[in-house]
Amino acid sequence: MPTSTALTAAGAAPPEPLAPNLQARRIGIDTYRENVVYLRRDCPLVRAEGFQALAKVEVASNGRAILAVLNVVDDARMLGECELGLSEETWAQLAVADGAPVTVRHAEPPPSMWALKRKIAGERLGADEFAAIVRDITAHRYSKIELAAFVVATDQFALDRDEVLYLTQAMVDVGQRLEWPQQQPVVDKHCIGGIPGNRTSMLIVPIVAAHGMLIPKTSSRAITSPAGTADTMDCLAEVELPFERLREIVREHHGCLAWGGRAALSPADDVLISVERPLSIDSPGQMVASILSKKIAAGSTHLVLDIPLGPSAKVRSMVQAQRLKKLFEYVARHVGMTLDVVITDGRQPVGCGIGPALEARDVMQVLHGDPGAPADLRNKALRLAGRVLEFDPDLRGGDGFALARDILDSGRARITMAAIIEAQGTRGFDWRDPPLAAMTHEVTSSATGAVTAIDCERLSRIARLAGAPKAAGAGVDLLHKIGDPVASGEPLYRIYAETMAELQFAREVATRASGFRVGDASDAGAAGEFAPEF
Amino acid sequence: MPTSTALTAAGAAPPEPLAPNLQARRIGIDTYRENVVYLRRDCPLVRAEGFQALAKVEVASNGRAILAVLNVVDDARMLGECELGLSEETWAQLAVADGAPVTVRHAEPPPSMWALKRKIAGERLGADEFAAIVRDITAHRYSKIELAAFVVATDQFALDRDEVLYLTQAMVDVGQRLEWPQQQPVVDKHCIGGIPGNRTSMLIVPIVAAHGMLIPKTSSRAITSPAGTADTMDCLAEVELPFERLREIVREHHGCLAWGGRAALSPADDVLISVERPLSIDSPGQMVASILSKKIAAGSTHLVLDIPLGPSAKVRSMVQAQRLKKLFEYVARHVGMTLDVVITDGRQPVGCGIGPALEARDVMQVLHGDPGAPADLRNKALRLAGRVLEFDPDLRGGDGFALARDILDSGRARITMAAIIEAQGTRGFDWRDPPLAAMTHEVTSSATGAVTAIDCERLSRIARLAGAPKAAGAGVDLLHKIGDPVASGEPLYRIYAETMAELQFAREVATRASGFRVGDASDAGAAGEFAPEF
Repeated sequence: MPTSTALTAAGAAPPEPLAPNLQARRIGIDTYRENVVYLRRDCPLVRAEGFQALAKVEVASNGRAILAVLNVVDDARMLGECELGLSEETWAQLAVADGAPVTVRHAEPPPSMWALKRKIAGERLGADEFAAIVRDITAHRYSKIELAAFVVATDQFALDRDEVLYLTQAMVDVGQRLEWPQQQPVVDKHCIGGIPGNRTSMLIVPIVAAHGMLIPKTSSRAITSPAGTADTMDCLAEVELPFERLREIVREHHGCLAWGGRAALSPADDVLISVERPLSIDSPGQMVASILSKKIAAGSTHLVLDIPLGPSAKVRSMVQAQRLKKLFEYVARHVGMTLDVVITDGRQPVGCGIGPALEARDVMQVLHGDPGAPADLRNKALRLAGRVLEFDPDLRGGDGFALARDILDSGRARITMAAIIEAQGTRGFDWRDPPLAAMTHEVTSSATGAVTAIDCERLSRIARLAGAPKAAGAGVDLLHKIGDPVASGEPLYRIYAETMAELQFAREVATRASGFRVGDASDAGAAGEFAPEF
Repeated sequence: MPTSTALTAAGAAPPEPLAPNLQARRIGIDTYRENVVYLRRDCPLVRAEGFQALAKVEVASNGRAILAVLNVVDDARMLGECELGLSEETWAQLAVADGAPVTVRHAEPPPSMWALKRKIAGERLGADEFAAIVRDITAHRYSKIELAAFVVATDQFALDRDEVLYLTQAMVDVGQRLEWPQQQPVVDKHCIGGIPGNRTSMLIVPIVAAHGMLIPKTSSRAITSPAGTADTMDCLAEVELPFERLREIVREHHGCLAWGGRAALSPADDVLISVERPLSIDSPGQMVASILSKKIAAGSTHLVLDIPLGPSAKVRSMVQAQRLKKLFEYVARHVGMTLDVVITDGRQPVGCGIGPALEARDVMQVLHGDPGAPADLRNKALRLAGRVLEFDPDLRGGDGFALARDILDSGRARITMAAIIEAQGTRGFDWRDPPLAAMTHEVTSSATGAVTAIDCERLSRIARLAGAPKAAGAGVDLLHKIGDPVASGEPLYRIYAETMAELQFAREVATRASGFRVGDASDAGAAGEFAPEF
């Protein structure tokens, strides 16, 4: 007969510890944003707790606890019997010393799991539920699988506009918030992305700052694109600056162009991106919450938002663009942000260069009034800068463009940009002889006619394969844009790469499909059906 | 100026290999169903291909290629500069020798990615699209994130009944299919799960086999429950048998009770479970596709399906039960399977034992006509066996129950079970003194009255924490069922565990909430609002 321990439900708990101590050991494995810990199969705790590989565990040391995925180790050389291996990410988060005592136990499901399940079931969530989910995401309590479930369950039209508002507020609440010096509007400009070469911010900031408005621009690095504003600015100046230094620069020059990553402006968004990226999900609700939460956290009060519209852009129909515009406006209004949404021509890349150094060259050509400067980049930047300038109550509606043009053509924008570059720490970039990658390959037209279409996605992919943004001098330089006449055999664009292997990758894909359509010149007209504002 | 390599789109490819060779090295890390490979950060290929941690890569050797997730190693002791580390799962799949040459390159997205994206966007998919998705899932081409996306995008009412049919057929097409000896109906019985102790199959198989109908039962092991039929049968006999041996047993005894895992009956389902489990998603469409694809693959032509209905069962309202029933019937009809769906009383566990040995004891008590045998288990098994027997064209409708009772009470079922146990390989289980775990704890009632409810989920959880099913003798033994009068302080159930730690885990949870409701005797009536068939 079994021996009874004579415990009763009301009896005292025995002294035996439920989660015995192990010793922490750093395992030099980089698991990116995923927390992974390692235990030996013959570790007594593995048997006692019934741990299996891929189990979610809670690891605690010194009052700090994190969640991680367990990998079970069969190789006795890797780990001692009573050691807990920590991947680099886990090691950094737990911040323990080698050999420090750690405890491991089965993780409880994240507290917001019930809310996630309701959303998966298609129910409508309230503000509290979004807050609970976003708190758990930020605390790394969601596994990859749970993150993917949240992203898919809130994709497309699965969120109504109030839910998007709740999600935005929840994302703001878990992040830091920057405070800028003066009591006045803090203006900003943002693009939803998808168009290579679209570096208007680097022109808008010096123009608007030269006018005396505060435009402390924090940008991201490229995630899926060949260059972000931060990557491009990085060619010209230091972009990773302590916040106190940025405040000083903004106080003196009214603007800056820095990387926003350090500030943890939207930590929930940083986690969500890790699953949105592999699924290439970019749903309206998540986009609005992601962008507006970051802008609020960055301290912006007035925002001009650029939604490019085109057949290979993120937004591919005017109906979709209008719906997205209204969703942005609804949420912005309820979080107290002044927003001006502009739907722009997104049928092709902006400017010529695609890749950090090539795009930096384009920007500097425009600032210096170089005759070879890309006219489309200049024009788009002036129009958007004009809209930002019109946030100035002293400016008449419609006068922004002319003022922006005056500031640019007078050289004041160039002087302000030079001052900002100097203040952030110049790289000594020479726009007349930019540091481009050494290996090149020209892709030529197989037909005679006019360029009728350029596929933004394809060109981005080719530039990335060539090494951008990691290799700053790599990328693609467009030699023709829509409407240009080309002859068969004439180069359409030039690929730049640092290594032969990268050049080959890019070339292979370009050979299969160049991303350019050359046809009858009459097909290469204006935006036509898309009819954006500009 | 950059040096041009003078390559043209039409030029010959240079001899440089795009995916240089590395050497395979087994890394003793168990990553369960996830393929993980390891590369050193300073490996030249990591730089050349721009690999980052968590990248999806294709690993090839000897004409075999698999997909895996990359972890980047910073510790030079773990791995050589030109070595590719393979986790246990990856090592097994690639089947290479230590030091064998392997190539690694960026994985192309799974071919069915476009179909997955359409489903995420809420569109309706056709048969070809489901086939493409299921092929990719089976070939391990989906990452955890993509699997989670599929599971959530097809959850709840996201699939119409034709889509469920397509998914079922696609899942059948990628698996093996068992063929049984005679040209006659192959009958089966299945329960959708969720009710602990519900081991009717172990009674139905000997009853139906004793009547001479073919019932080759393959069951799964527990996934989230404290015992599956395979775990319970494992207490009595060997359950992991080669298929040829099972055919012999079925030829001789008309039935078997084996583990179905070896046969790869529904390999796609095996992969999907790895994400459905952590999300505890069990949507109607996925349930129907999973169950019917497995039954078709197992060679069944006639199936009785048990849908338990109760407040803590998987199905919690009659409307939901009816909807699920019709979905099962629709798909079964179109795949040519004869199906009889029965909605049963799922308000509490069936029998007394919860856990492999305890449930095996209950089954043997019923087979031996022991006076202490749980009456509800006996009754439910006889009713379901009766429905299976009525697939016999020579039997009158309504005569099944009486025939089943005759076969059981005459001892013929017991004799058939003994023969099946002997044929599969007996464990010498003594049902009068079953091998239960040594440590016990009794949970007592805090009130006087009658048992009015028993929470199936709670009792399952307590039995699992006590060690079931891994520890076969662990679990919970119910001392009272709904309707029983109990006095304050009287034991409600007994927990069995092998280790003090496990007993403590289970006890802690039972102390917080026992899973029993004791109240006014008049509340503990019949199924009432649920009104199942039995």
